Parts: sequence; C-alpha cells; structure tokens
Amino acid sequence: MSDTRPIGVFDSGLGGLTVVKALQKLLPSETIIYFGDTARVPYGNKSKELIIEYSSEITDFLIKNNAKIIVVACNTASALALDTLMKYVSVPVLGVINPGAREATKATLNKHIGLIGTVATVSSGAYENAIYDIDESVITSAQACPLFVPLAEEGWLEGDVVEKIVKHYLTPLNEKEIDTLILGCTHYPLLKKVISALVNEKTILIDSAEAVAREVQAQLSTFHLLNNSGQKGLLTCYVTDIPMRFETVGKRFLGSSLDNVQTVHEF
Amino acid sequence: MSDTRPIGVFDSGLGGLTVVKALQKLLPSETIIYFGDTARVPYGNKSKELIIEYSSEITDFLIKNNAKIIVVACNTASALALDTLMKYVSVPVLGVINPGAREATKATLNKHIGLIGTVATVSSGAYENAIYDIDESVITSAQACPLFVPLAEEGWLEGDVVEKIVKHYLTPLNEKEIDTLILGCTHYPLLKKVISALVNEKTILIDSAEAVAREVQAQLSTFHLLNNSGQKGLLTCYVTDIPMRFETVGKRFLGSSLDNVQTVHEF
Repeated sequence: MSDTRPIGVFDSGLGGLTVVKALQKLLPSETIIYFGDTARVPYGNKSKELIIEYSSEITDFLIKNNAKIIVVACNTASALALDTLMKYVSVPVLGVINPGAREATKATLNKHIGLIGTVATVSSGAYENAIYDIDESVITSAQACPLFVPLAEEGWLEGDVVEKIVKHYLTPLNEKEIDTLILGCTHYPLLKKVISALVNEKTILIDSAEAVAREVQAQLSTFHLLNNSGQKGLLTCYVTDIPMRFETVGKRFLGSSLDNVQTVHEF
Repeated sequence: MSDTRPIGVFDSGLGGLTVVKALQKLLPSETIIYFGDTARVPYGNKSKELIIEYSSEITDFLIKNNAKIIVVACNTASALALDTLMKYVSVPVLGVINPGAREATKATLNKHIGLIGTVATVSSGAYENAIYDIDESVITSAQACPLFVPLAEEGWLEGDVVEKIVKHYLTPLNEKEIDTLILGCTHYPLLKKVISALVNEKTILIDSAEAVAREVQAQLSTFHLLNNSGQKGLLTCYVTDIPMRFETVGKRFLGSSLDNVQTVHEF
C-alpha cells in the first residue's frame, strides 16, 4: 500500500527548508508541501501566545491540503506550540525538539549536552525537559545565539567576524566541557563549519534537521503511510510574503532552486 | 489656541522610539501615541505590498485614536508606503525620508551624500529621489547594512566585532569620498559612536530622528496644531506583541522606561 498524500512541513520562514532538504534525501518519493510564514518571520523573539496562534493557523492550512503528517520544522514553534497542536490534530505531528534531544542523549558520553538556539527556544526549556524525560542524569547547558540567524541569512558563513561572534557564544559552553552540541535552530547548520572548528575538540554536533527526517521516516513506516511509488516526489512551497532576495536565501537553505512557490494571504 | 490631540507615531517595532525621544526633547508638552508593530517586525525585508497594507492599518488606528499628525518613524514604511498614506489621510503625514534628505542636502559641501539603511529602504531609491528633487547636482551613494539592526537590538554597540562589521559596510562609501552620511534607519543612531569613528573624517552624520522631530515642530506650528499647555505630555505605547526582552530593548531606544504599554490584537 502506498500513501501518496503529502508531508506537511512548516517554519516561520525559509530556514525550515533545511528540514525539507534532509527529507528529500531520505525519502525521495514523498510529496512535500512546505509553508514558510515569511510575512511574520522571525518567531524567535515573539510571545508564546502569538507563536501558538500562528502555528495553529498554518497547521490547519496543511491539514486542509491533505497532509498525512505535520512536521514543525521551526524550533521556536516546536518548543512553544507542539503540545497544543498535538491535542487537536488527527494526523501525527512531529517537532524538531524530541528527535534532536533523543540523538543527543544517545551521543553523549560524559552526560553533558550543550544547546544553542534562539532566545525563545532557549528560554522555553523545551530541550532540557525532553532530555530530562529521556535520561534524568544528563545535564544540559544552553546558550541563546541571537546573531546567528541574521548572519546565516546574510550569508556571513565564515571569516574573522563570524568566528568572533561564534566564539563569544560558544565560550561558556566550552568551559562547561560539553561533549555534544545540539544545533537548535534550522539556520544554524549553515554555520556548522565555523561552529565545528570553535567548539571543544571531539564534540559531536547534532543537526535537528537530519534527526527529524529520520523520525518522519520511522513514523510513516510504523503507520503504513510511506509513499512507495518510486517516483521523485514534488515540492510545493507556500509563503505568506515574497520577501527581498527570496530566491537567494531559499536556495541557501534548500541547496537547490525553489520552483513551485505560491503566495498565500488568507488561510 | 492649543491643540491637545496626540501626535501619532508608528514603526515596525521599537526602533521608532528614537523618534519619540527626539520629539519629547523638542516638544515636551505634546501627547504622543506610539504604535510598534512588534508582532510583524521587521519590515526591512518584506514586500512593498505588505508594507503598504500594514502601514495603512496602523495609520487608520492612529486616526481613530484622534491623532492630529502622523509620523511614519520607520524608514522602510516611509520609503514604500508614504505616498499611499498621504493620498487618503486627512491630517498631515510625515515620513523620515524627506526631513533626512533635506538636512543632508543642506549639510553637504562636496555634493556627495552617503546613505545607509535596510535592504528595503536602499532598494526603494526613496532617499535618492528625495535628494534629487531638492538638488539635481547632488550624488547619492547607498549601502544596505542588514546586520546593523540585529547588532543594535542585541546591544552589540561597540568593540572589535561591531567595528569590523561597520567597517565592512562603510568602506565602499568612504572610497567614494562622501562628506555627509544619512543614518537611514531608526536603529542606527545606537551605533553612532562606532559609525562616527569609522566613516571618513569630517563626515557629517544626519540622524533622521532629530530631523523629523524638527519637521513635526514646523508643521504643527504652520497649521496651528501645537499644544501650548506647558504641561508635560504623556506617552502611550500600543504594540501588537510583547516580545521577549521588551523592557530592555524599549529602554535602549527611548532612553527611559516604557510605562504605559497596551497590546492590540485587532485594530
């Protein structure tokens, strides 16, 4: 049996395309609809109430468009809105927090995990709670890195300035001798090279995008929802605004051109 | 005759409080209502259509709240939405572009003005057009500085990293030998110290916030709309969201605490 309905993925902006990229690699036959709330990006410094409101609107849109599973690719929305969404949505709903927390807990040897993310994600304590639920003996140390998103969006991905900013944020975590670091924001994989060079040696980096893609595969398989057609799945993108430099920024995250993009105003 | 109705000021977020600060200094008796669209900030990388839609909604709200003059404190909204607003609003509407352009044109000796702003402001060509309308012989060279807003909001206002980023953006302008530089974004006055140190010597910095405050004073006087009560005017702030670290960021721009803040969801 093959389920041809699409996987619904959403994010506050275009950063969640890193999750789409990981899904396309792992599940090439799946049709994907991506919703980027580009008119209201960023979520990272908004209130919890507003993030829940926006996330619910978008989830309803994806369900109306026949999504068989919902992937909340935004760390901030996963941290603050996932519980609410899971309560009322009839298809499986996955965030990026739990898959990331699980991989990190598996990877750590000294039981000390570091987390970097937006102010909202870090303040929510969502990763700490998820890790604690898996293994009470693991310590989590978190650091908000609010300049990483603008750096990644502007394409400042290496060089002296970026290194200094990355070092500024990583120093407290390095001092705490973490051995595993969760990249708790969809934008951060773009800075992986510099982060990897400046975090303590032998620290394992956990990319939530890849972790959630593996979890989607597992869930689709468990619930017999996989698309087994063998044909290459299509990607359709819905955005709430076509911002300046949309093409350039989108390509930076997806790794290829965005062909099928529609703007949505009322949803 | 004294007109006690408020001055209505709006911005995409809290940056426009630098304009409020300049207004309070120059016109201490005026009542001010400030609208910060904190749920939808930033405007700087959104489309023109969306910026016009948001600006019109907010202007209608300020008019309903009895504003005697509208000040568009956001450079992006001034660049992209001012013409639309002026066509249908019955009270005077002022943006930050024209006052800044006028002061810069008065200040330049070598007839070469530099402009720094968001991607949207710079791409709009609004400052260039305003300067050209005043003096056709003046050349304008513009540079978008997309990292300045996050730096200012995060309180990275001096030091090595900030200097390198500022230098990166100012070098092309310095090479063109501008003698006047417009700070074309409400956030940039916070970085004035570093900008001033790194722009060519003797370059005059034009702060749009101060320029627009003087223009408001002139217009209120011309139209007999000044508040002559002699009492200290009140400031009321309306915001569309109370974001994380609202107090800290607000105080950074206004220079004093925000006491009277209301959240607006439907307007």
